[in-house]
Amino acid sequence: MADNKKKTTIVLFSGDYDKAMAAYIIANGAAAYDHEVTIFHTFWGLNALRKDEAIPVQKSFLEKMFAKMMPRGADKMGLSRMNFAGVGPRLIKSVMKKHHTMPLPQLIEMAQEQGVKLVACQMTVDLLGLTQEELIEGVEFAGVAAYLADASEGNVNLFI
Amino acid sequence: MADNKKKTTIVLFSGDYDKAMAAYIIANGAAAYDHEVTIFHTFWGLNALRKDEAIPVQKSFLEKMFAKMMPRGADKMGLSRMNFAGVGPRLIKSVMKKHHTMPLPQLIEMAQEQGVKLVACQMTVDLLGLTQEELIEGVEFAGVAAYLADASEGNVNLFI
Amino acid sequence: MADNKKKTTIVLFSGDYDKAMAAYIIANGAAAYDHEVTIFHTFWGLNALRKDEAIPVQKSFLEKMFAKMMPRGADKMGLSRMNFAGVGPRLIKSVMKKHHTMPLPQLIEMAQEQGVKLVACQMTVDLLGLTQEELIEGVEFAGVAAYLADASEGNVNLFI
Repeated sequence: MADNKKKTTIVLFSGDYDKAMAAYIIANGAAAYDHEVTIFHTFWGLNALRKDEAIPVQKSFLEKMFAKMMPRGADKMGLSRMNFAGVGPRLIKSVMKKHHTMPLPQLIEMAQEQGVKLVACQMTVDLLGLTQEELIEGVEFAGVAAYLADASEGNVNLFI
Repeated sequence: MADNKKKTTIVLFSGDYDKAMAAYIIANGAAAYDHEVTIFHTFWGLNALRKDEAIPVQKSFLEKMFAKMMPRGADKMGLSRMNFAGVGPRLIKSVMKKHHTMPLPQLIEMAQEQGVKLVACQMTVDLLGLTQEELIEGVEFAGVAAYLADASEGNVNLFI
Repeated sequence: MADNKKKTTIVLFSGDYDKAMAAYIIANGAAAYDHEVTIFHTFWGLNALRKDEAIPVQKSFLEKMFAKMMPRGADKMGLSRMNFAGVGPRLIKSVMKKHHTMPLPQLIEMAQEQGVKLVACQMTVDLLGLTQEELIEGVEFAGVAAYLADASEGNVNLFI
C-alpha cells in the first residue's frame, strides 16, 4: 500500500438501488483520481454483491426466509423513494438508459476493473445467512477492525 | 481557495425535511467557524433546491411525472419518520416555531448568506428532468470530480 | 485531550435498530483501537438513549404524543428494512443470539464502559420534548459547535 495515495472508504449499509449507485459513482470517481478505494458492504448493502441466480446452499428456515425476501443482486434492488412496488426502478433505469448513465451492475463491474476493493462484512454475512458462493467473485471478507484500519487513514469516509 | 481553512463537504442525497435540516444546521455551524463549506445535492436532495412555484419548462412525460411527484422546494419535503401523510412535518414545524428553531427554507437562505457553496449534481439533475430555471438562484452545477476535489481535502465529510 | 490520539465522531440521526447497531459496532471497534470516540445523537437517534421505563415528567400535548410514538429505548427500535410491524427485529435478535452477536442495549453499555462519549443534541432533545431524566445516565448534552470541534479534528467522521 503506497502511503502517499489518497484513500476513500465507503460503508454501504443501504440496500437501495439509488444509494448504492451514489456509492459506486463516488467510488469509481475516486478510483479514476487514483485513490485507494474500499467499499465495505454491511447489512442490506450486501445485497448489491449477491449473484442474480439461485445458488443451492444449505440454509436454516430463517436463513431461507431472509434469502427469499432480500433482492438477489444489484439489478433487483429497490429505490429509497418512489419505489412504487418496483415500478420506480424500471422508470429510473429507462431514464438512465436515455441519458447513457451506467446501471448499477455495470458500475460494480467497473469498480472491480478499477481495483476498488469490495469487502463483505463477515458478521452480517453470517447474520443474514449468506454464504461466500452466493456473492460475486472477487469479494473479500473482513470485519470492523479491517474497516477501521482503512478508514482511519482515509481522506473521504462515507456511510451510505 | 485558502488552503489553511478547514473544509466541510456534505453530500445531501436525502429528500427528507429532517435530514436536510441536519445537513444545513451542520453546514451553517461549520461556516460560522470559518470552514469552507460545500453541500453537494444529488438525487432526492435536489428537491431542497427547487423553487416553490411552478416554472413553465418543456418536459417529457416521465420528467413531468417526476416533477409532479417530488416535493417542490424545501418547505414541502416530508419527514424520514412519523411523516403521517404530511401531518408530521406540520407538527414538527409548529414545535420548531415554539422553540425558535429556524425552518429549512431560512436555514438555506442563511447558508447562502454565509457563503456556503450549494452545488447541484448535474447527472441527477438531468436524470430527474430538472432544469436550471427550476432551482433557486446561486446554485452551481457540477459532477463527482468537483465533489471529490473538495471532499479529498476535507476535514468533515458527510453523506446525508 | 491527547492530540496524538485518533478520533472517530459519529452523528447518529437514525432511529433504526440496525443502523444504531452499525454505529455502536464501529464506535466500540474504534474505542478498542484506542480512538477517542464520540457519538452525537440527534433527532430519532435520541431514542437509543431513552430509558425503557416511563419517567413521569410534565409534557405538553404534542410532547406526550411524540413520546408515545417514539420507541422507548434501544431495545424497542425497529429495523430500517423488513421491519414487518415489529416481527423483523424479533427475528434478527433471535438470529443474533444464535451467532453470539451483542444486542444493541449491551453494545451501548459496552461503549460507555470503553469511554465512548455519548452526546445528546440539545436542540433536538428540546424539539422532541425529551428531558434529561428520560435518557440513560452518563449522557452529555451539547450542540452543533461541540460536534464540529470534535469532528473537524476527526479521522473517521460518519453520519448514520
